[in-house]
Amino acid sequence: MREGLSVDEAQELILAASVPLGAETVSTAEAAARVLAESVDSTRRHPPADCSAMDGYAVRHADLTHASADAPVSLPVVYEVAAGGHAARSLEAGEAARIFTGAPLPPGADSVVRQEDTRASDGRVEILVSPEPRLHVRDGGEDFEVGDRLIEAGVVLGSSHLGVLASIGRTIVSVSQRPTVSILSSGDELVEPDGPADAGQIVSSNSYTLAAACRETGAEPSYLGIARDSPEDVERRLRAGLRADVIVTSAGVSVGDHDHVRGALEKVGCKLQFWGVRMKPGYPLAFGTIEPTGTLVFGLPGNPVSAAVTFEQFVRPALRKMMGHTDLYRPVIRARISERMTKQAGRLHFVRVSLERRDGEFIANPTGNQSSGVLTSMTRGDGLAIFAAEAESIDAGEEVAVQILDAGFFDQSERGF
Amino acid sequence: MREGLSVDEAQELILAASVPLGAETVSTAEAAARVLAESVDSTRRHPPADCSAMDGYAVRHADLTHASADAPVSLPVVYEVAAGGHAARSLEAGEAARIFTGAPLPPGADSVVRQEDTRASDGRVEILVSPEPRLHVRDGGEDFEVGDRLIEAGVVLGSSHLGVLASIGRTIVSVSQRPTVSILSSGDELVEPDGPADAGQIVSSNSYTLAAACRETGAEPSYLGIARDSPEDVERRLRAGLRADVIVTSAGVSVGDHDHVRGALEKVGCKLQFWGVRMKPGYPLAFGTIEPTGTLVFGLPGNPVSAAVTFEQFVRPALRKMMGHTDLYRPVIRARISERMTKQAGRLHFVRVSLERRDGEFIANPTGNQSSGVLTSMTRGDGLAIFAAEAESIDAGEEVAVQILDAGFFDQSERGF
Repeated sequence: MREGLSVDEAQELILAASVPLGAETVSTAEAAARVLAESVDSTRRHPPADCSAMDGYAVRHADLTHASADAPVSLPVVYEVAAGGHAARSLEAGEAARIFTGAPLPPGADSVVRQEDTRASDGRVEILVSPEPRLHVRDGGEDFEVGDRLIEAGVVLGSSHLGVLASIGRTIVSVSQRPTVSILSSGDELVEPDGPADAGQIVSSNSYTLAAACRETGAEPSYLGIARDSPEDVERRLRAGLRADVIVTSAGVSVGDHDHVRGALEKVGCKLQFWGVRMKPGYPLAFGTIEPTGTLVFGLPGNPVSAAVTFEQFVRPALRKMMGHTDLYRPVIRARISERMTKQAGRLHFVRVSLERRDGEFIANPTGNQSSGVLTSMTRGDGLAIFAAEAESIDAGEEVAVQILDAGFFDQSERGF
Repeated sequence: MREGLSVDEAQELILAASVPLGAETVSTAEAAARVLAESVDSTRRHPPADCSAMDGYAVRHADLTHASADAPVSLPVVYEVAAGGHAARSLEAGEAARIFTGAPLPPGADSVVRQEDTRASDGRVEILVSPEPRLHVRDGGEDFEVGDRLIEAGVVLGSSHLGVLASIGRTIVSVSQRPTVSILSSGDELVEPDGPADAGQIVSSNSYTLAAACRETGAEPSYLGIARDSPEDVERRLRAGLRADVIVTSAGVSVGDHDHVRGALEKVGCKLQFWGVRMKPGYPLAFGTIEPTGTLVFGLPGNPVSAAVTFEQFVRPALRKMMGHTDLYRPVIRARISERMTKQAGRLHFVRVSLERRDGEFIANPTGNQSSGVLTSMTRGDGLAIFAAEAESIDAGEEVAVQILDAGFFDQSERGF
């Protein structure tokens, strides 16, 4: 087993072990945000025929070459075509037909005059304009023809995609499966949030953070509870999680006498690939796979910030790859750091920062105490500034990359146009 | 009733009528992405006491001022403190205690030496370094003290916020309610996607698009079906939607003889505030409220693109305001348009564009046919370029504002650092 990998090396090994899941068929109405697992070709023509884009009158433009508001042309209204209806017969020279938006253009007609450009009275209509051919006519097949490629496999389905699928009668659709994730906490000091927390006891908050992070990613978490610091309890709970695509533990994968997770993982068939990543927070990260199922196992650190940051860097991209996404990573923007920072060379630091816009640039303000126990600093941050592994200082005003952790960061309080 | 408003005027009237909903209490585990309706102060201290940040040995630093790898200092290990445990007694001068990450620091001890900086043997430990006071000690209350403000009301809860709430034992939390939205389609030409679509019939795709858009916004849609073009059927279905916070209809709010929605809306108590917005796609938009419930009513156009674009501009910000969000709007970026565009002055055009990055700038490519019936052009677009109401042309290369419709647009295929 390798030890003390760089962030790059760790991510490469993890993504190599993360295999896209198979497909499943779901209701189109519930397919939003899923990754399409099939390319969809049209089985219909849309619109099915030439149709009117307006409420008005279907006409033959040759009858109206000299029509104007000063010299209206009067035509008999010989029938009406409603949306969903059809023309009683062909429109002959010198005739008009009442027509409504979406209704098929009668044979013989070649233009539609808007209601606003007419005066109707007593079975006839006065046309006040001279329409060009095809005016206000939507061409049959304008949106798509039978056989057209509508959506490529791999696309993340948005609301408009669902509308397109519905419009060709696709009420079910094949999408990539969502990974299931079993989450295990461990430690004698941990209690659940609804229990009493006596002196020295710590509420197990990681299960809440990690389950929510899984859901935000689109995966399906389940919670295996808190394992006590005994090899038997850890193993028993891990076995309950073996059906999942991914197992995420927090705490217990370290060098201490009380860290039983590593041994239990090996006992349930997990081959650890590495332990330790040269980053801060988050050094004590273990990763392995269980054969033959290929279940991924992430042993995250127990400190809340370390667990959240390692989930972001390693678990989330793996889950996204399993779900068929090609964009595995969070947005990264450039920002100027507001204060000088120093560290020893060797580990990549993820510095929690809040961001503000000033003169068209982003300023990154470190959120105070960067201890890996201070989860509240994560909640106050917009992202993680990257302090490179080999760097020893960043000067105030220097440009840094900032990984944006909250998709809502780019939302605006003003409309912006 | 006013007619033909600008986008600004319409949005102002709509937001003035959109009132934040009340609060409801939900399980913290299911509160992700909700807007916090209460400010949360800490009822606990975290960590509850000074504790060890490492696996190692609790010591008194004054005993070790001259310790080094060359001149180790040997101390008796008088007891052990596990995480969740507590010290048997005070640590006296010349003593060490075995300690694990998260365990409370024994009274008398003032530093922790990492296991890696020691050699243990037979009830004693050799210390190879001279620790500073408080080395590897996490201060009690480092994260928060009793009474500290942890999360302000109005914050959108992310995974770390749920961890913070759990860590003070808050398993339920007060959040803003989610608006319920009744969606009604109307038109004799419409059929459901699972039914046969004969010549002239159109699949009702708007219900899929709009329901998914509601869910993406965080609202709870329900679908009232397709109303036929009769005043009675429209009214009957509208009445079934009156329990909702918002009613969204598509099609039927126009000037044609077959548009029965407006009349039916008035019959169920809806006072229409305006009809028509000077934009394209999307002119035929109606908005009103039903008193005394304050239910908002949006009569969206029937064309799929018009319905999707007017939902984005008017319904989504209203829903977000009702849910307690302060960032009501989508991200807007600046981009150079790739081709010259012209139009008549008078209406603001929302031009569907796909975006590409080139030389550190965004290029906006209009997605072909901008007809309001071509929903596939929405699925191929990343956003809507703004072609101002009074403008008549935009030259190729000119800068435009582009509203980003897909929150995933900023995700990256490469890690970016």
